[in-house]
Amino acid sequence: MTVAVIYGSTRADGNTEILTRQAVQGLQAEAIYLKDFDIQPIEDQRHAAGGFQDVDDDYLAVLERILPHDTLVFATPIYWYSMSGRMKNFVDRWSQTLRDHRYPAFRSSMAGKKAYVIAVGGDEPLIKGLPMIRQFQLIFDFMGMRMDGYVLGQGNKPGEVLQDQPALAAARLIRNTLKNIEGG
Amino acid sequence: MTVAVIYGSTRADGNTEILTRQAVQGLQAEAIYLKDFDIQPIEDQRHAAGGFQDVDDDYLAVLERILPHDTLVFATPIYWYSMSGRMKNFVDRWSQTLRDHRYPAFRSSMAGKKAYVIAVGGDEPLIKGLPMIRQFQLIFDFMGMRMDGYVLGQGNKPGEVLQDQPALAAARLIRNTLKNIEGG
Amino acid sequence: MTVAVIYGSTRADGNTEILTRQAVQGLQAEAIYLKDFDIQPIEDQRHAAGGFQDVDDDYLAVLERILPHDTLVFATPIYWYSMSGRMKNFVDRWSQTLRDHRYPAFRSSMAGKKAYVIAVGGDEPLIKGLPMIRQFQLIFDFMGMRMDGYVLGQGNKPGEVLQDQPALAAARLIRNTLKNIEGG
Amino acid sequence: MTVAVIYGSTRADGNTEILTRQAVQGLQAEAIYLKDFDIQPIEDQRHAAGGFQDVDDDYLAVLERILPHDTLVFATPIYWYSMSGRMKNFVDRWSQTLRDHRYPAFRSSMAGKKAYVIAVGGDEPLIKGLPMIRQFQLIFDFMGMRMDGYVLGQGNKPGEVLQDQPALAAARLIRNTLKNIEGG
Repeated sequence: MTVAVIYGSTRADGNTEILTRQAVQGLQAEAIYLKDFDIQPIEDQRHAAGGFQDVDDDYLAVLERILPHDTLVFATPIYWYSMSGRMKNFVDRWSQTLRDHRYPAFRSSMAGKKAYVIAVGGDEPLIKGLPMIRQFQLIFDFMGMRMDGYVLGQGNKPGEVLQDQPALAAARLIRNTLKNIEGG
Repeated sequence: MTVAVIYGSTRADGNTEILTRQAVQGLQAEAIYLKDFDIQPIEDQRHAAGGFQDVDDDYLAVLERILPHDTLVFATPIYWYSMSGRMKNFVDRWSQTLRDHRYPAFRSSMAGKKAYVIAVGGDEPLIKGLPMIRQFQLIFDFMGMRMDGYVLGQGNKPGEVLQDQPALAAARLIRNTLKNIEGG
Repeated sequence: MTVAVIYGSTRADGNTEILTRQAVQGLQAEAIYLKDFDIQPIEDQRHAAGGFQDVDDDYLAVLERILPHDTLVFATPIYWYSMSGRMKNFVDRWSQTLRDHRYPAFRSSMAGKKAYVIAVGGDEPLIKGLPMIRQFQLIFDFMGMRMDGYVLGQGNKPGEVLQDQPALAAARLIRNTLKNIEGG
Repeated sequence: MTVAVIYGSTRADGNTEILTRQAVQGLQAEAIYLKDFDIQPIEDQRHAAGGFQDVDDDYLAVLERILPHDTLVFATPIYWYSMSGRMKNFVDRWSQTLRDHRYPAFRSSMAGKKAYVIAVGGDEPLIKGLPMIRQFQLIFDFMGMRMDGYVLGQGNKPGEVLQDQPALAAARLIRNTLKNIEGG
C-alpha cells in the first residue's frame, strides 16, 4: 500500500497541512502540492468535432504521480464551503482523461483506490463542511473509489487547528489504519 | 431592478445556457461568460505580511460588472457535483476582495442582492445536485444575499435540457418573477 | 400502472393534501391517510430470541394496501425538517417486514416501484427540506425503488400553498407523467 | 452544568446506548429512555378553533425532565437514515408546546441549551447519517440551541460499535468537554 496526498492549499504550512501531517506522519506518503503546478480549468470539448485538445500544462504530470498509489488523501482548505478552486480544477480535468485514448484504464485504475478527505475551515466545518463531504462521496462513487474516512477540522488563524482535539484524534486514527495496512 | 447572469460554462450554447435563457429572455440582463476572462485561482495571503497582492488578471473587471446589479443568476454546468472550477475560482477570489481596502463596501453591496442558481447536469441533478445548492445557500448566507430560487436541469448531449419539462417550467416561472419586478 | 398516495398529514385538507391533489387529480389513485390508522413505533427485536413479535395494530393492513401499486406518492407535511412522525413510524416498521417470513417478497415487491415525494413546509422548504429529500432517496435506494420526482411547497396558513406557483406547476407535471403512463 | 440524555432506542443496551455511555460515564447525567414512555404523534391543531387539545400521555412529563438541564444529548439509532420514530414523535410535539400557554418560556428555555447528537447505524453512517445531522442542526437552529458536537458510530450486531475506534474516541472527547464544564 502506498499513499499520495493531494494538497489543495495555496499557502504553505497552513492548517490543512498541519492536520494532514497528523494522518500521514511516519508513512511513505507522496505529497503533491497543487499550488506548485499549472493546472488549467477544463474546456468542455466532449461534443466538439475533434474531442478534447491537449492542454499545455502540468495536469497529466500530476495525474501520473497519483495513479500508482492505492490510497489517496484529498487535503484541502474549505473555501466557500467546498474544495479550493485549484483542487476543483484538477478534479474537473478528470472528465477529459475519461475520454483520453492514452488512458483507457483511467477509471478502472482509480476504481481500486481508497480515499480520505481532510479539510479545515473556519466557519463551523463540522456542519457547513458536510455538503463538501457529500460532493467528494459522489465523486468517489462515480469513479468507483471507496471513501474510507474524512476529517473536518476547525481553524482560521495560522496553527489554530492544533486546538481542535477531535480532529487531531480522528487524523491520528487514520494514521493507525494506514500504518497497519502498510505493515501488512 | 437589473440582472446579471454569471455563466460558468466552458462551452457556448450548452445546456446550461439554453436553460438559463428561458429565465432571462426578454429581460435586460447582462451576460457575463467567465470563460472569456482570465481569472486566477486565489492565493491565500490572509496571513502574509503585506496581505493580498494585486493579481494581473480580469477578476476585478468582472466583479465590477456584477456589482451594479441587484439580481445575480449563477448559471453553471454541474461538474463533479458542484459549480465549474472556473466559477469556483471566481467565487474564491471574493475572499480577497473582502480584505481589499479599495472595496470597503463589497460585503454590504452584495448583501442587498437576490440570487438564483441555474445548473444542468447529466447524473441525476435533482438529487446529486443538492449538495451544490446547499453550498450556494451557504455562500449567499455568508454574504447576506438571498437565494430566491434555483433550477436543476437534466442534460448531457447538446440541447438535451429542452426535454426536461419541469426544469423549463421552473425557469419560466423565474422569468415571470423577474419581469414583474422589472416592470414594477 | 396504479398509484397509491400515502398521506402523513395529521390535518384534513392541509397544504400537503392540496398540493398533492394537483399531482393525482383525475387519476385512479388510492389515498391512504395514515392518521386514520393505528401504527405503533417499531420495537427493535432484530436480535431478540424469538425475533419480531406480531403487533396488534393497523400496520400490515396499510402495507397490504400499498403493495399492489407500482407508483407510490409519499405526501407529508415537513415537521421539523423531515417527514411527520406518523409517516416515520410507518417506514420504520418496514425493518420488521423485511424479517417477516410471511412477506418473503417484500423487498423485491417494493424494488419495482416508482416513488414521488410531495412535501409542504413553512420554513424555506426549498432549502431546508433538502435533507429530507436526501433521506427519502436513501430509503428508496435501500429498497431498490426509483425516485421519479419530488415537489417542495411553501405553506403555513391553510391553503397558502396555492400561492406557490413553482410547486403547483411541478405537481401538475407529475400528473402529466402519471397520466401518460396510465394511458399507455 | 447538568446533562440530560434522551434515548430514542427501542432496545436496551444497544449500540447507541453503548456509544453514548462513553460520552457521559462518570457524569451526573439524567437518562431518559423514550421507549419507557407513551408519547403520541402530534395532531396538527394549529389552525383548529380551540387550538391544540391536551393529550393524555407522558409527553409533558418527559419534557419537564429535560427542561432543567443545560446540555442535551440526543442519542438515537439511525432508523431509515434519521432519528427513530419515537424520537421524532417527541420532537414533533414541541410544535404543540410552542403554542401552549402553560409554557410561555419554552423556546427561550431551550435556546440556552447546548446539544449533542450521538447516533449509530449499520449502513455507512459517516455518509448516510449526514442528512440526519443536518436535520438536527436545523431543529437546534430553530430553537436557538447550539450544536456542540456529534458522533456517528457504525454498528449493526449487538456491541459492534465497540470496534468503531474513531467513534469511541469522539465520544470520549465529548466526555472530557462535559467534565471540564461540570468541574468549572
